[in-house]
Amino acid sequence: MMMDLKSYIREVADFPQPGISFKDITTLIGDAGAYREVVDRITDHFRDKGITRVVSLESRGFIVGGALAYRLGAGFVPIRKAGKLPASTISMSYALEYGTDTIEIHADALSEKDVVLIHDDLLATGGTALAALQLVRKMKVAAIHLSFICDLQFIQTPLKEELQKYHPHVLVRYP
Amino acid sequence: MMMDLKSYIREVADFPQPGISFKDITTLIGDAGAYREVVDRITDHFRDKGITRVVSLESRGFIVGGALAYRLGAGFVPIRKAGKLPASTISMSYALEYGTDTIEIHADALSEKDVVLIHDDLLATGGTALAALQLVRKMKVAAIHLSFICDLQFIQTPLKEELQKYHPHVLVRYP
Repeated sequence: MMMDLKSYIREVADFPQPGISFKDITTLIGDAGAYREVVDRITDHFRDKGITRVVSLESRGFIVGGALAYRLGAGFVPIRKAGKLPASTISMSYALEYGTDTIEIHADALSEKDVVLIHDDLLATGGTALAALQLVRKMKVAAIHLSFICDLQFIQTPLKEELQKYHPHVLVRYP
Repeated sequence: MMMDLKSYIREVADFPQPGISFKDITTLIGDAGAYREVVDRITDHFRDKGITRVVSLESRGFIVGGALAYRLGAGFVPIRKAGKLPASTISMSYALEYGTDTIEIHADALSEKDVVLIHDDLLATGGTALAALQLVRKMKVAAIHLSFICDLQFIQTPLKEELQKYHPHVLVRYP
């Protein structure tokens, strides 16, 4: 029988703003057994895909992304906020509720031979994930797969429809 | 024969400021073989210590920290910058060259039974690592171990002397 991973996720009321029930995955990954289950289940799903590099988003995405890269025998490539990566980068800006944000990847971090798994912890509006996908697409890799721990399915956006074309793997759904 | 991990670390001139040669570990962890070696060597060192939780620092420390928690059969606990963790936290402020910075950990993330491995990528002045150590000490855990990928040994500070009491494990030294 599979472990009920959702029961390990803490809901924090009114964070980061009043009215939002934040899905706190620290209680999931802080439990050794649940953490192992998270990493093993995602690994099992992608084991036969020939993943060569795991790309994750700063900063919560780095945690499970780091473990997945190890388990899949892949290298790890970070996507970070603007100005954090030291060498030459490619960047992508995307809209937030108010204003824009910019993320970057090292220009030499991926090649045309790479089969990439993009992993992040949480899929909400899809804005950050789509920006990450577009950034990796710019680099003309061989294939791209998507993985998320949680999908807040009650948030529906056109951005998420675009992501659905890649059949993202999701562990925990909030309908 | 052991892999020469230092040869995988890129030095970036004048980042983040003129005169600084930045040690860029993204080229180390981006290589599947070198990344595996990093995680395996640290795991081998701590395998018999009974580590129950790996604590890592936002955000580069999360990558290898996430893999170590998996390999050691431990839970993962993040230390983040102030305001990022959603539930009740314990915080620690520490001096920077100009001003101060504050890091936080969830107040319920560790218990007195925990044997903790604190992992970060880079040991420079020791300021952040010492603040992390003091934060974990406040939580009265059973034991604390320290791990870093790189130690910039040419930077000598009293803070680093304090850390030496914990015999930190280091993979790559810059004398």
